[in-house]
This record gives sequence, structure tokens and C-alpha cells, in this order.
Amino acid sequence: MTKDELNGEVFSGVCAKADAAARAQSDLAQADTQVKNALLHAIADALDADASTIAAANGQDMQAAAARGMDAGKLDRLRFDEPRIAASAEGVRHVASLPDPVGEIERGYTLENGLRLNQVHVPIGVIGMIYEARPNVTVDVASLCLKSGNAAILRGGHDAERTNAATLAVIHDVLVANGFDPSLIDTVDEYGREGATAMMEARGHIDVLIPRGGAGLIQAVVRNSKVPVIETGAGNVHIYVDRSGDLDKAIPIIINAKTQRVGVCNAAEKLLVHRDVAERFLPAAAKALADKGVELHADERAFAIIEAAGIPSLAMKHATDQDWDTEYLALTMGVKIVDSLDEAIDSINMHSTGHTESIISEDYSAIETFAKRIDSAVVMVNASTRFTDGGVFGFGAELGISTQKMHARGPMGLKEMTTTKWIGYGTGQVRA
Amino acid sequence: MTKDELNGEVFSGVCAKADAAARAQSDLAQADTQVKNALLHAIADALDADASTIAAANGQDMQAAAARGMDAGKLDRLRFDEPRIAASAEGVRHVASLPDPVGEIERGYTLENGLRLNQVHVPIGVIGMIYEARPNVTVDVASLCLKSGNAAILRGGHDAERTNAATLAVIHDVLVANGFDPSLIDTVDEYGREGATAMMEARGHIDVLIPRGGAGLIQAVVRNSKVPVIETGAGNVHIYVDRSGDLDKAIPIIINAKTQRVGVCNAAEKLLVHRDVAERFLPAAAKALADKGVELHADERAFAIIEAAGIPSLAMKHATDQDWDTEYLALTMGVKIVDSLDEAIDSINMHSTGHTESIISEDYSAIETFAKRIDSAVVMVNASTRFTDGGVFGFGAELGISTQKMHARGPMGLKEMTTTKWIGYGTGQVRA
Repeated sequence: MTKDELNGEVFSGVCAKADAAARAQSDLAQADTQVKNALLHAIADALDADASTIAAANGQDMQAAAARGMDAGKLDRLRFDEPRIAASAEGVRHVASLPDPVGEIERGYTLENGLRLNQVHVPIGVIGMIYEARPNVTVDVASLCLKSGNAAILRGGHDAERTNAATLAVIHDVLVANGFDPSLIDTVDEYGREGATAMMEARGHIDVLIPRGGAGLIQAVVRNSKVPVIETGAGNVHIYVDRSGDLDKAIPIIINAKTQRVGVCNAAEKLLVHRDVAERFLPAAAKALADKGVELHADERAFAIIEAAGIPSLAMKHATDQDWDTEYLALTMGVKIVDSLDEAIDSINMHSTGHTESIISEDYSAIETFAKRIDSAVVMVNASTRFTDGGVFGFGAELGISTQKMHARGPMGLKEMTTTKWIGYGTGQVRA
Repeated sequence: MTKDELNGEVFSGVCAKADAAARAQSDLAQADTQVKNALLHAIADALDADASTIAAANGQDMQAAAARGMDAGKLDRLRFDEPRIAASAEGVRHVASLPDPVGEIERGYTLENGLRLNQVHVPIGVIGMIYEARPNVTVDVASLCLKSGNAAILRGGHDAERTNAATLAVIHDVLVANGFDPSLIDTVDEYGREGATAMMEARGHIDVLIPRGGAGLIQAVVRNSKVPVIETGAGNVHIYVDRSGDLDKAIPIIINAKTQRVGVCNAAEKLLVHRDVAERFLPAAAKALADKGVELHADERAFAIIEAAGIPSLAMKHATDQDWDTEYLALTMGVKIVDSLDEAIDSINMHSTGHTESIISEDYSAIETFAKRIDSAVVMVNASTRFTDGGVFGFGAELGISTQKMHARGPMGLKEMTTTKWIGYGTGQVRA
């Protein structure tokens, strides 16, 4: 996915789609909330009505993927059967129920000369989405973009092409039936990988690109895109148990953060323990983790303490340098002893992907220092990292979790899919 | 300024400076507002005390630039004499007086499970600034970055190198004397153009790049940077006189927007007039503009109407296609007749740089439509475009005017130099 691979015809085709989307978006941006909500309900109803068609297309994708040897975890993500389609439709209805950020006034005041200034939230424009084989993303993105007045250009990955095409056909029919331009939600799947490359070059046509998927996909987009990118999702998430940590809180939090759902970006990947509590804490933590089937990759000191505890059924390896930068997305956890709060903070800021880090501590000053100095989207204090989620945060739905600092940081809801515009209402004012 | 020109040694040098800046910034981010304000006052005092040294360095830059044949306008921008240094120092004191955005809570609430969530403003990190020969920018950027807890890596342009070096030496002395790391505000001027190229490649080292200068500089940075860029400053600014426009408001606004200060990004460049008022309005407007020495580049219909008026001392040419995309930054104005409000909006959205557009109208619906459909950072209604300015908007100071949609749009003050971090204060919460 580099510029050298860029095919001129594909680039023109992708830009033409983005420009058509932009023209359609200019009308959608003016649509009243109730019109957009009615459209979303119609999409939800159509997804329910046509669930068997979409599920049949998904069946073909699943069969082809299985024949290519796709693993069970990925196959499960690819599945978009009737119950999941129904859940997606329900999600669209939920988005319809959320407050519309468009038109919300961020700041407003009147200058001394009487000029009345409003900073108003407006849609961004054309959102480009590059994602891997998760067919629900097609529906999520369509509903979030339409509600926030944005158009979307989608590249959904080869594995889910039939599913995405069937889903998009349903959405297109509803758009047309409701008097909207189907260009609002379009795909470049017909161009294959070159379509994604062209999206990254389409500066001035696509306003922002949001990759959703594995670290490889995200880094390829970040490195190659000329369109502004919002990085999402990579989560090398840390939990630090401070010397003052309440161990009765720590173990349930660690178990929840590591094992409540594996393979998600807000699951914990690393456990850092202050040396003063390591002897007391590590054997109990290792036992609880082993009971849940978690394999530990421990540094030398942690390894020695845990090994001495003689925990049956424990799986443990010596950690390598690579471990500290790895997002396992599996029942694996890196464990390390640190000599101080400062060492914990420095180590986290060096190895973290900037998603979420949690401190377990009863020490006010340690907590304040950790919360201030950790350079991540979310810092949790005595709470599970699994709470970093647009739904949990009260956004109702999320487009992804931004791990970068520009525009949006942390869970991205509808409001993060807007920009602002200043409007100055005057009566003939000129500048002195 | 492309990747091919990238020099490995220069890249390492620039990254090392950015990394040192980041380490220093991590401490600055924790500094109390009063400590940062004291630092700013010390810098202001030092600029006053060492004004003659800086002015002498600027004298050498001015002499060398004049010898190279720099034009009068650019020479004036390059001038940093004692009165201007005193004004810059006063600007630094003003920044000290502004509210500190760091620590401001954007949103905060408590979830049903008792987890207390705060979204807090925090500094972005390392700001890269690439600018042309305007020595005051060095002081502006240093003060705005320090106040907002950010570090800055500067590339100030060859013409002002002696001035910038002298200014930076003063700032460095004050940083050291106040216990701060001088790496906080650093320059890559010693690497020349290659320094700027390296900054654009330094993703992961520099958090955001803000080019300030002509359209050529800005576009080169936008096209080539791997670091996120905030586009600033280009202003192909339009005024549209609606059929319902109050002509007594229109002419003072047009004269103010075009001539109050030439060569600034919020100065008007284009005048669009509804055909229904063209006969009545254009002769008077052309006369007022001619009196101020403005040359008109008119489309066919406007040309005919204005020519028929027989205005003495009028300078007028036939507009070419290029005119509609040109930011003159001079006493020149493109003039065009449109058949409708829609044509005005479409023409503006096609040719504008997304900075500021103004409508002169008494028609409520036309104003609402214009304000909603114009896709620019600022829309003015019956007011001069010259009001688009961080100072006028009440930000106290500005780093530039963003003409793009991500992160910040319109004037960028201290708050726009922050990102946010979520902090969740819990008591042992885990996700169900």
C-alpha cells in the first residue's frame, strides 16, 4: 500500500466516488434530525427484512474464508448471521435515539462591537473507513455517519466482500427510497487493495481516514496516507500495582481487564508491580491468572517470585524485550517488577500505544502523579481498563478509540465526528 | 522538500532534538500556571533587556536580505527592531495574563457504577513550526507553547536566521535560569531546508506540524509531511452581496475587508454580486474601491456594468479563470456577478480556501442558507472578514488560523494547543 502501487484509473474512480459523496453530504448536512432519524429507522427495518439475503451472502464469505483456512477467531468476527444482523439493526435504532451533535453550539458570545459569534458543530464531510473482515462495521459506520451528517467511503476487506455488498445494497435502497443520494455511503471494494491505496492519496477528496483493524493495517495507513488519519484501536494496555495498592481491588481488576474479553483493544496486556509489594502480591495474582488460563511472560525478578510459589497449572515464560511492545490479544500477560512509581510511568510511556493504563493505589500523590504523567488517552484509577468504551462512557455508540492526540482522543462518538464552524452575526461592523 | 532529499544524519539530529524537547515537555506539562507565568514574564523582561543585541542581529539579516534584492514588503516583515521587540515582549506578558487551558475539564460525570470520569485538557506535546521570515513568530510560538505546556521545534527560514538565533539565545538563558530545560524551545535552523524535510518525516517525535507563511510553503508541508499537519492561513476570502443586501452596509464592509490591511489572510479577495443589484451596486462599489487604489479583475458582466459607469482613475482588467483561485494579498479584487444565492454558494465552496466568507443580506432565509452551506472556518453576516482573528475572537493571542477541519478550525488560541485525556477515578470497579 504505497504510492508506487497507485493505479491512476483506480485513483480517479475513488476520487469520483468521494466527490459524489461530498456533493450528497452537502445536502445531508442540512437535513433535520428527525429526517435523519427516520432514515436510520428505515435502514434498521430493511436490515431486519432482508436479513436472510445478507446472511446468505455472509454464508458464502464464511465458506470461502474457511476453505482458505481462516482461524476460528477471525471466522467468528466475520460471521454476520441473522441474530447478529438483528443486533446491528437494533444498534442503528439506538443511534437514531442519540442526541444529534450537528448544530450544537460549542462557544458563543457577543463582542464589544455587537458582533455575535457562535462556534457551531458541523459534520466533517467525507469519512474514509478502511477496515478488516468485520461486517458489522459497515452498518455501524453507515449509521454513525448518517446521524452526524457525514458521508462515508468504505473499504471493508476482501474476506467480507459479499456480506458488505449485500449490506450496502440494502442501505442504498433505503437511501434512494427516502430521497437521499446513495453516493452518501459508498464502497471502493471493487478496486481491491488498490482502492485502499487510492483512498490514502485522496487528499482534498476524503476529509479523514479512520483505519479499524489490526496494528499492521493501522500502521500501514498511518505511514502512507496523505489524508489526515485518526489512529484507533491498538492497545498495549498496562496495569500498575503501586506499593500502596489495595490487593483486594487489584486482583479482580486484573482478572477483569485481562480475561473478561480477550482480543479487544481495552484488555490489559501488561502488569507492572512495585517491588515493595511483589512478594506479597505476585503469587496471588499469578494463581488467579493461571486459574483463568493466562500464560505469563515474566521478567527475571517476577519469574523468580512466581516460580517459588509453586502454582499448579501455571504457564510462564521468561519475557523477552519484544514482550513489552506486544499487544497479545490473547490469554497472555507480560509481568514486570518496577522499583518506583517513576520507573512504572517511564516504562509505560515508552512502551504503551497510548490507549489506556490503570493504577491500583491508595496513595493520593502517587495517583495524581500517575494520572498527570501518563501520556495515554485514558488513565484509570482503581478500575478496569475494560471501561474505555464509547458505550460505557455514555456516548451511546463509538466509531473507534482514538489513540492519537489530534482532533479526538479516546472513544469517538458522534460529537467526535464533527468539526466546528464560526458564524459571526453582524449589523455592518468593520474593523477599526 | 521531499523524502528523496532526506539526509539520514539530519533526520537523526532533528529527532534527537524533538525527543529531548518531549522529555523536557513532560516536566513542563506538570508545571503550575504561576510558574509558567513567571517564566513568561522573565522572558519578556529579557527580551526588553537584550533588545539591542537582537535588533543588531536583525540589522545584519535585513542588510543581507536587501543585498539579495528582497522586496520592501518582505523586508518590512523581516524587520525586528527595538520597538517591535518591545511589542513582542508586551505580547509575551499578555500571554502570561491569559487563562491556562491545561487542566480545564471539558466534560465530567459519574457512571452508574460510581466511576467518576473527567475529560481534562492537557498539552499536545511537541509542536513543530515551519515559518518564513517573520521573527516575531519565534517569540509568539515560544510564549504560546510554554503557556500551554508544549515544547516547540522551530524552523524559521534562512532570511531571519541571525535574528531567530539571537532571540532563541535570550529565551534559552531564561529557561536555564528558571530551572527549565532549554530543549523546550529549539531550532533546526542549522540544518537549513533539510531540517524542515526531516521535521516532516519525524512522525512519533513531533506531534503536530504547523506551517505559517505563503501558500507554497503550506502546500509543500501538507503534501509531504508524515507528521499530522494543521493547515493555516491561506485566505481566498469572498464577500457575497445578496439581492437583499443593504448597500450602505456593503460598501464600508468591502472597503474595510479589502483595504484596511492588505496582505493578511482575512483580507477579502473576491466580490460576488447578485445580478438583481449589480446595476445599482457595482458602480458605487467600484468607485469606492478605485478611490482606495484597488485594481479590479472583473468577469464579463461586471466589467460591462462598471465600464459603463465611467469611473475616473479606475484600474480594471478582464478576469481569467485563474483569478477565482488566486489569493492576491495585494490591492486587487476579483469581481463576479452571480444569478442566484445557490450559484454564489457553489462558486465560493469551489474556489475558497475555507478561511472566511461574508454575506451582505437582509434576507433571513438567504443568510441561514449561506451560513449553513458555506464550508469554511468562518462565515460572517453583514460584517467584515477582517474580524477572523484570535485576538478579536477573544482568545488573547493566536498561533494561526486553521483552514482545515481536523482538531481546530478557525483562529487557534491556547485551548487549540491542547488535547484531552480521560481520567477515571474508581474504587475497584470491574466490567460486568
